[in-house]
Amino acid sequence: MSTSRLIGQLIESLRCLPGVGPKSAQRMAYHLLEYDRDGGRLLAQVLEQSMQQIGNCESCRTLSEEQLCTLCASERRDRSQLCVVETPADVQALEQSIGYTGLYFVLMGHLSPLDGIGPEALGLDVLDRRLRTGKVGELILATNPTVEGEATAHFISEMAHGHGVRVTRIAHGVPMGGELEYIDSNTLSHAFAGRQDI
Amino acid sequence: MSTSRLIGQLIESLRCLPGVGPKSAQRMAYHLLEYDRDGGRLLAQVLEQSMQQIGNCESCRTLSEEQLCTLCASERRDRSQLCVVETPADVQALEQSIGYTGLYFVLMGHLSPLDGIGPEALGLDVLDRRLRTGKVGELILATNPTVEGEATAHFISEMAHGHGVRVTRIAHGVPMGGELEYIDSNTLSHAFAGRQDI
Repeated sequence: MSTSRLIGQLIESLRCLPGVGPKSAQRMAYHLLEYDRDGGRLLAQVLEQSMQQIGNCESCRTLSEEQLCTLCASERRDRSQLCVVETPADVQALEQSIGYTGLYFVLMGHLSPLDGIGPEALGLDVLDRRLRTGKVGELILATNPTVEGEATAHFISEMAHGHGVRVTRIAHGVPMGGELEYIDSNTLSHAFAGRQDI
Repeated sequence: MSTSRLIGQLIESLRCLPGVGPKSAQRMAYHLLEYDRDGGRLLAQVLEQSMQQIGNCESCRTLSEEQLCTLCASERRDRSQLCVVETPADVQALEQSIGYTGLYFVLMGHLSPLDGIGPEALGLDVLDRRLRTGKVGELILATNPTVEGEATAHFISEMAHGHGVRVTRIAHGVPMGGELEYIDSNTLSHAFAGRQDI
């Protein structure tokens, strides 16, 4: 299709990026080749290095090139609070927006028996051992409010209760700045049921 | 910003791709790390190779890893027709849509004196020598219908006329499937002025 075999290969390889179709892949390839070879070379190098070196944090399972991620290694974090999230991007989002100082536990997914993703695949055996140590005072469940996320949260809360650990779930309701008129009914029922005294 | 130095670098490097902002770069990085390491490795390799090996075709100046691009090397192409375009992507577009069998000459830009892009930077000295050989029977100007593209086309047509070569310009007018009502007035005037007997 392309007038050069290698450019054709480059366009094809760029399509492994999410959200990149044939047209944008072509635009990216020509942009790099015509205007930004240094950027392209650096990207190739960092990409190679990342795919090679980034594994999972031994303690919280998030993506990290070190044995312990920067958060788990930090001495400033409160080890008595543990927040359970589904993905590394969730850690990122929470770190950027709130003043949480505890640690995280990253499931790297959610329970999904039909896809063969059970408790072991999410490292829940590791979490279980950690809860057993008695060092975790509060387990904060911040999985997504989807069917799978809720099921996962339920499963983990049962586990934690078994060890007598306090479990909390982040609040779900009307997002700040949202207008009631445009909020879906499921969220509204949640918000109503979860009302608090002021 | 990221919980891992290397992931932060990867996100930063992905932003050299056109149309990729901080959020999409993050999404791309996590996608590759979580679901497609093989794709990431292949992309790194092809990218490295492309940045290293792809240069310009000796004959038509388009991007190519060979001394002669596949079109210039092909014996099936009609060497008496030469179509002048601004970028390799233009060659791609023409090859995909029309039955043109001649060769191309790729300027890799357009005349832009304010940016220091003169005739030499566009390889017009090379084109001049090629026109002088007398082997080109028709020079087809397919630069973009922008101010710079038109100026470039004008400059090249003067040059070709000096060598007694026939020069043509691709038609500009109402695009097929376009509705007159929504076409800008500049295009409409062009279409009107360029009307032909049927």
